[in-house]
Amino acid sequence: MCGIFGIHGHPNASSLAFLGLWALQHRGQESAGIVASDGDRVSHKLGMGLASEVFTGNALKTLTGNLAIGHVRYSTTGSSTLRNAQPFLVRWQKGYLAIAHNGNLVNSFSLREQLEKEGTIFQSTMDSEVIVHLIARSKEKEVEGKITDALSRIKGAYSLVILTGNKIIAVRDPHGFRPLSLGDLGGAPVVASESCAFDLIGAKFTREIEPGEMVVINRAGVTSHYPFKKVKPSFCIFEFIYFARPDSWIFGGSVYLTRKKLGECLYEESPSQVDSVVPIPDSGNYAALGYAQKGGIPFELAVIRNHYVGRTFIQPSQSIRDLGVKIKLNPCRYILKEKKIAVVEDSIVRGTTSRVRMKNLRAAGAKEIHLRVSCPPHRFPCFYGIDFPNPKELAANVMGIEGIRKFLGLDSLSYLSLQGMLSAMPQNGQNFCTACFTGKLPCKVRGTNR
Amino acid sequence: MCGIFGIHGHPNASSLAFLGLWALQHRGQESAGIVASDGDRVSHKLGMGLASEVFTGNALKTLTGNLAIGHVRYSTTGSSTLRNAQPFLVRWQKGYLAIAHNGNLVNSFSLREQLEKEGTIFQSTMDSEVIVHLIARSKEKEVEGKITDALSRIKGAYSLVILTGNKIIAVRDPHGFRPLSLGDLGGAPVVASESCAFDLIGAKFTREIEPGEMVVINRAGVTSHYPFKKVKPSFCIFEFIYFARPDSWIFGGSVYLTRKKLGECLYEESPSQVDSVVPIPDSGNYAALGYAQKGGIPFELAVIRNHYVGRTFIQPSQSIRDLGVKIKLNPCRYILKEKKIAVVEDSIVRGTTSRVRMKNLRAAGAKEIHLRVSCPPHRFPCFYGIDFPNPKELAANVMGIEGIRKFLGLDSLSYLSLQGMLSAMPQNGQNFCTACFTGKLPCKVRGTNR
Amino acid sequence: MCGIFGIHGHPNASSLAFLGLWALQHRGQESAGIVASDGDRVSHKLGMGLASEVFTGNALKTLTGNLAIGHVRYSTTGSSTLRNAQPFLVRWQKGYLAIAHNGNLVNSFSLREQLEKEGTIFQSTMDSEVIVHLIARSKEKEVEGKITDALSRIKGAYSLVILTGNKIIAVRDPHGFRPLSLGDLGGAPVVASESCAFDLIGAKFTREIEPGEMVVINRAGVTSHYPFKKVKPSFCIFEFIYFARPDSWIFGGSVYLTRKKLGECLYEESPSQVDSVVPIPDSGNYAALGYAQKGGIPFELAVIRNHYVGRTFIQPSQSIRDLGVKIKLNPCRYILKEKKIAVVEDSIVRGTTSRVRMKNLRAAGAKEIHLRVSCPPHRFPCFYGIDFPNPKELAANVMGIEGIRKFLGLDSLSYLSLQGMLSAMPQNGQNFCTACFTGKLPCKVRGTNR
Amino acid sequence: MCGIFGIHGHPNASSLAFLGLWALQHRGQESAGIVASDGDRVSHKLGMGLASEVFTGNALKTLTGNLAIGHVRYSTTGSSTLRNAQPFLVRWQKGYLAIAHNGNLVNSFSLREQLEKEGTIFQSTMDSEVIVHLIARSKEKEVEGKITDALSRIKGAYSLVILTGNKIIAVRDPHGFRPLSLGDLGGAPVVASESCAFDLIGAKFTREIEPGEMVVINRAGVTSHYPFKKVKPSFCIFEFIYFARPDSWIFGGSVYLTRKKLGECLYEESPSQVDSVVPIPDSGNYAALGYAQKGGIPFELAVIRNHYVGRTFIQPSQSIRDLGVKIKLNPCRYILKEKKIAVVEDSIVRGTTSRVRMKNLRAAGAKEIHLRVSCPPHRFPCFYGIDFPNPKELAANVMGIEGIRKFLGLDSLSYLSLQGMLSAMPQNGQNFCTACFTGKLPCKVRGTNR
Repeated sequence: MCGIFGIHGHPNASSLAFLGLWALQHRGQESAGIVASDGDRVSHKLGMGLASEVFTGNALKTLTGNLAIGHVRYSTTGSSTLRNAQPFLVRWQKGYLAIAHNGNLVNSFSLREQLEKEGTIFQSTMDSEVIVHLIARSKEKEVEGKITDALSRIKGAYSLVILTGNKIIAVRDPHGFRPLSLGDLGGAPVVASESCAFDLIGAKFTREIEPGEMVVINRAGVTSHYPFKKVKPSFCIFEFIYFARPDSWIFGGSVYLTRKKLGECLYEESPSQVDSVVPIPDSGNYAALGYAQKGGIPFELAVIRNHYVGRTFIQPSQSIRDLGVKIKLNPCRYILKEKKIAVVEDSIVRGTTSRVRMKNLRAAGAKEIHLRVSCPPHRFPCFYGIDFPNPKELAANVMGIEGIRKFLGLDSLSYLSLQGMLSAMPQNGQNFCTACFTGKLPCKVRGTNR
Repeated sequence: MCGIFGIHGHPNASSLAFLGLWALQHRGQESAGIVASDGDRVSHKLGMGLASEVFTGNALKTLTGNLAIGHVRYSTTGSSTLRNAQPFLVRWQKGYLAIAHNGNLVNSFSLREQLEKEGTIFQSTMDSEVIVHLIARSKEKEVEGKITDALSRIKGAYSLVILTGNKIIAVRDPHGFRPLSLGDLGGAPVVASESCAFDLIGAKFTREIEPGEMVVINRAGVTSHYPFKKVKPSFCIFEFIYFARPDSWIFGGSVYLTRKKLGECLYEESPSQVDSVVPIPDSGNYAALGYAQKGGIPFELAVIRNHYVGRTFIQPSQSIRDLGVKIKLNPCRYILKEKKIAVVEDSIVRGTTSRVRMKNLRAAGAKEIHLRVSCPPHRFPCFYGIDFPNPKELAANVMGIEGIRKFLGLDSLSYLSLQGMLSAMPQNGQNFCTACFTGKLPCKVRGTNR
Repeated sequence: MCGIFGIHGHPNASSLAFLGLWALQHRGQESAGIVASDGDRVSHKLGMGLASEVFTGNALKTLTGNLAIGHVRYSTTGSSTLRNAQPFLVRWQKGYLAIAHNGNLVNSFSLREQLEKEGTIFQSTMDSEVIVHLIARSKEKEVEGKITDALSRIKGAYSLVILTGNKIIAVRDPHGFRPLSLGDLGGAPVVASESCAFDLIGAKFTREIEPGEMVVINRAGVTSHYPFKKVKPSFCIFEFIYFARPDSWIFGGSVYLTRKKLGECLYEESPSQVDSVVPIPDSGNYAALGYAQKGGIPFELAVIRNHYVGRTFIQPSQSIRDLGVKIKLNPCRYILKEKKIAVVEDSIVRGTTSRVRMKNLRAAGAKEIHLRVSCPPHRFPCFYGIDFPNPKELAANVMGIEGIRKFLGLDSLSYLSLQGMLSAMPQNGQNFCTACFTGKLPCKVRGTNR
Repeated sequence: MCGIFGIHGHPNASSLAFLGLWALQHRGQESAGIVASDGDRVSHKLGMGLASEVFTGNALKTLTGNLAIGHVRYSTTGSSTLRNAQPFLVRWQKGYLAIAHNGNLVNSFSLREQLEKEGTIFQSTMDSEVIVHLIARSKEKEVEGKITDALSRIKGAYSLVILTGNKIIAVRDPHGFRPLSLGDLGGAPVVASESCAFDLIGAKFTREIEPGEMVVINRAGVTSHYPFKKVKPSFCIFEFIYFARPDSWIFGGSVYLTRKKLGECLYEESPSQVDSVVPIPDSGNYAALGYAQKGGIPFELAVIRNHYVGRTFIQPSQSIRDLGVKIKLNPCRYILKEKKIAVVEDSIVRGTTSRVRMKNLRAAGAKEIHLRVSCPPHRFPCFYGIDFPNPKELAANVMGIEGIRKFLGLDSLSYLSLQGMLSAMPQNGQNFCTACFTGKLPCKVRGTNR
């Protein structure tokens, strides 16, 4: 996963891009970068770590010009180097071109092989470099044509922001796997992965960019194009379950309200007789609120989060870990003692983290624990940009639902049904990609990408 | 404010001290330090910043021995240097002595002047250095006697952990202004400002150290002394209102439950006809829960906290700030639009921060805002360790309650009454220091400390 | 200027590359980099600053494999970024390819333009990236053929070390502008810009790589090829005057002995009646020794060098500089007082630095100063890799020789004649490029490079 | 060893102190510090490493006021911590007091014990803290009297610069072990360990401060006091042999000329029939020049020094070291091949470093090596501030002179005689401490200082 941002025609473009990235930081913490330009000269800064770690001191002052795009990158195994930080910036026939990409191509391996045969060199292992080569080698005359030409050869998930000359071009793939929105800050057009970035900088949320839409922003304003054949949408449902920020609007709905709805459906499918409903913060908070309100059960923030877990935190040694150290979350025993509780989580992946949490809740005195998960069990991989573990390691595949219940030491365990989940969505459930739950792929995956 | 920690007789003493400090990090973010010893050789590391920033890499490996004490320091103006980081470590006639201090002396200025006249040199501006000189110059023979001798000359608030030779000595001043507790980790005695530090490291909470009590820990075990004349307790009520962690037990009660109780009393005194109750996270969460549950009103976590605000975060320039940038907290407009809400805060100090928050809530669509504060208005300074602004800058003194309501643009504003606050306490309200609300000082303040 | 290094078939390849770069550090201090490989997997580290600043901590441990090449880069204006650090590493049809380049192309601008038209993207402003694109796009089948094909299209100065697959290929341009030598470390072939790198790592100096020669090193051993048409050599004479290290052997001779010979010729052409000969350390030391020995005049190291001038040294403010601060060199007044001295410098460029030095010598008491320069006056630019200032700023063009004498406040000033300089060379003077003195270019310069 | 500096009444005091320390950097590279004041407010910065590493960025801008003192500290085993960095700054009855100390006390252990018994606490292991406590506890009224009182109780070597209020006080112990000089920068008095610091900042060298002299500098000017009983001087002869910079004037003479004289005496005592005289740079350069000139033998700088050996340099692993890596010094084989040479060193301590050097000279082709050392063999420890190894490890004690010759693989080895060394001194040889050669102590050593 990644977060992307662009702004056109604002005197503080790079500072606003920094704030935009910072609002999108939950979408990627591995690296951050900004490319700024006045339409002619270009400057950039990329670095490993959080946006606030990369853009320190006077870093933003050197990023001048009233156009800027930015990118935050999620940590995925094997490729964690500065070379793979984005935006990816190159010189080409039309001056410079920078690209910020959220998503995952499914045919990049074969494209790469083909390009190398034709004498192309690569400096990164990013899908995005493939896109840039395809753009540069297109025979079309104009940038827009070259981009359309290039994108018509690729398959998979992409939300892109491209900066070249004095244009910013934003594109969302025909399936619309990843979100992308358009906003406005006092006349300066803004694009961002999620609408929460607009809130942070005081911009107005205009609308979502549609699947298959290409938005071209230049001094004359914003124009919209639909260069690709229309296909059925495949919005990533996991953005609603877990990934997006609760204060964002994506795929036609509020994330906060959708999560509450998931919790309400969960209560309807799997009620519980408990003293209180306890969320695992922060991602479980909203479904838990929905569950509690629907059930008329007291809601308690009984698991306290430590806000000082930084990048440099030293992991305690095994001998200390065995003492039962509670690094991030501490259950408050004075609320839990002798109590029956329903715990709401947004997902169980391997199950190991959940196990520690449940054990700590027991140690804090909980008498009964009824775990409720606000989506169906995860059983399949994602080819479109979410970094799940190998399916063989997913708890639902390893031990089955009853196995998980025992492994976690629960009094009861229920998942939301697929139907329940789809019914909580703010639009037709058929428009969502549920491949990680069902294994049904919305578009063909050719070749393998490493 | 500060947080202190000590552990005696554990092979991982310094690692556990680090974890303890990390659990107490909310009590001070300016500097962190640990002194470790095997009873003979001593090692230390102090640094500016969070514990996780100071103890990086192999820092803990050099802190050997099975005794350790630690300290985190709150940022106060004018003295933010490494020299004032604690624990304060010196060599003296009995080898080494290290001290970690939470609190504020009220007669340190005159003591310091007296000591300097006698030929004493000072290397810091900390009260704690005065205490150490008094200990070293005492004519008593034993360490315990020297400490009692020294403390009998000082007035004010102190919770202390002292490491010297193979002893750890913990003392709480006769008024008991600051909390201090005793725990046990598999036979190793532990002391900490708050019980949440015991939870984190998997230790058991034994009991609070009493006002005026001196606990001496050596290889033979834990012994308790009461060397001072008994006086009426003066527990800092602001620990319950705001400062302590919700999962801690202090002054005879659970912080979480006491805050909920404050919220319940607040509803009883000042109910409201609203669609939902919204806390300002995280400190307002628990009183808001009490308020909502008492009133049977839906609770909504409608203000979203950004978790990536780090130490190195670049403040946006004024021109950007004017755009209405929401650095830490973003109200979720999809929950607030056209709604009447009760907002629960734990305190209003200058009022400027609250004003921005209320403005943002309005901008997100809230139709009516009824602010409820879970304590009385702040009007007086604190001489015992809490760093309030000058009374002339406190909102309640500057503009009065109705003035605050207008300044914040509220539909209604209510504070909890003094009586209501005291009734929510887990023990006799007369045992608390309420000087910041009432101006009544529990012990004489002589001289001025700069 | 730059320094390059390569080693094939040694278990400590990257450590030896680091030491090699460190011996070549005088050839470039802007950035340093190493690419290592086991013939299959490749790793690299590039950084700004000295080799000893880039390769700290465990940096070398991650550079595994028994093949390695390295590069140190000279600071030139306008392009001082990590993007321009070398070796330049890419992925291509045959896996990976890394290149380290010393020299300057004269037709890179037109080649770049042509490549961009064909759809090529560029990520740096280095000449070396042009070479790599030409190699990748060649229709030849084998790597050696592709490299020959590419190099036949470029003009200018290049000594190259290329690492691809399990081969290291070293090439020197047909004119042989820059030095490049072949050595052997216990059977492992080594290449380096100067033989001093062999001394440092304990390798044997085998021979210089010849102008126009391509040396291919693989597991089978070292083979030599001459794929280019033979032309008259044009060795850079400034390497002997100033650039190369005194303990190196280049262009058929010892740098130390050649510099002494320059000093001897200088005495023969321009003797002086003085008490002692004083070099400007360190580069003037050897010509000064030759001058003193030829003249039978005492040699005195009367200008003392401060060894602690680091990268982080804070330049004193103008008000302090006016006091006559002597940052790098301090004349020893007890040797100079009332003395007539001959000072030997290797060159005068703008004249401003020399002026400060002469002023300081006067202030230290020198009665007469006779400056002797061990080469003719610089009047022209260099197109082959040496970064001289604009010819309009060169002292000899600005004020003429007599003007320089007055500007520097000298009793006499003499330069070595062109004929004298050539006669001091260890081989036929016609084989040297003297363009910076004479303006005669050994190969056509087409287009401009920025 | 250490270097100390002070300046009074200059608007750029701290910048000049930085430059002064930088000129004295050869006297200590472990830590550096500056204390600056306007006579009232005081600021300081101390750090580990070189002055240029400690005073980076805006560090000097925060050190305001027209008084400043500074200190560089030599690395000695066991106490390398920031706590022992100087100047040592404290608050006392008269405001603040800072002290910079070069030398070693011989009775600090017993004084420390006495002070601790009286209730004094210590924060460092430095002798200098003992001095400060004695000053603070003196019953004298004025600062000068307190300092005299304190110093009359200590024994050993000390050159001190003290900053308190608006005074700088410089004192040299009665024996005058360590150098200390007085200078003038446009009316602002300056003190420094060596006169080279005056050269660097453009100040005039006024005179040496005499043994037993106390110089008091305030706004009224410079006054001189002789509060101690006069004793026979004991100037450290090793300052002339090795420690001081060649461009300094100390103990009544030029270091450069004295070293040349040592070389001349060495040739008279131990001539050699060789092709050239080769110094080990840089410290052997000047004695080698004297030796060569006296003998009429060509002088060659045949050992080339690498200037890029920084603090962060990674030591090669043993497997690489065995290859014969030449980290700092590389002999130039083109000068040495088949040659008979006399090598001049300033001292042989353990002999291990010399052995590597001689081996490298042989490997570079030297046919005969005649080593000449410009002082007698070291056999005894130093109690006054020079950090020699344990006498049991000194080569002269371990293997005797003939043993050293064989160990180093020399054709001949000669040391300068004690008489020869003393005759080269610029004043009566009886005024020098030669304890490291003869074992005769100039003042009693009581107790041990760890």
